[in-house]
Amino acid sequence: MYVVIVYDVEQERVAKVCQYLRRFLHWVQNSVFEGEVTEAQLERIKQGLHKLVDEEYDSIYIYCLPHEKYLKKQVLGIEKAPIAQILD
Amino acid sequence: MYVVIVYDVEQERVAKVCQYLRRFLHWVQNSVFEGEVTEAQLERIKQGLHKLVDEEYDSIYIYCLPHEKYLKKQVLGIEKAPIAQILD
Repeated sequence: MYVVIVYDVEQERVAKVCQYLRRFLHWVQNSVFEGEVTEAQLERIKQGLHKLVDEEYDSIYIYCLPHEKYLKKQVLGIEKAPIAQILD
Repeated sequence: MYVVIVYDVEQERVAKVCQYLRRFLHWVQNSVFEGEVTEAQLERIKQGLHKLVDEEYDSIYIYCLPHEKYLKKQVLGIEKAPIAQILD
């Protein structure tokens, strides 16, 4: 499946969450990651995030799609981290 | 169609972009909006954003899906702005 993860966490945890998600997904923009994952990988990601964040203060949204083909992406302004370049 | 818009803009333009997107979409989280829009509304949103942002520095990603049914959303931690409440 294809996921887009956006997070809004307290400043002191931003770097840890960012670093953690980089292991599984492509960094797109400030607080946004996306990529193709399996069900098992997504479970692992969620378990890791559970440990890293404070669920009373932080907020993480995981948007899951069955396939990337359902997603049309448009960018206004700069592409901070074009995925094509990461995959090169 | 259903859209999720995430933005990473310079501090001086954050409030304007946020205020603008609130007119069309539901605020989800810091720098994230989502909602159902028509093609025409999306064009209007994009035109408005073109005027508000500096495309040499700012970055706005628009994820479009043909229908909300393709999107499964999971939240870890707090829901900063639960859409159900907004619609009530």
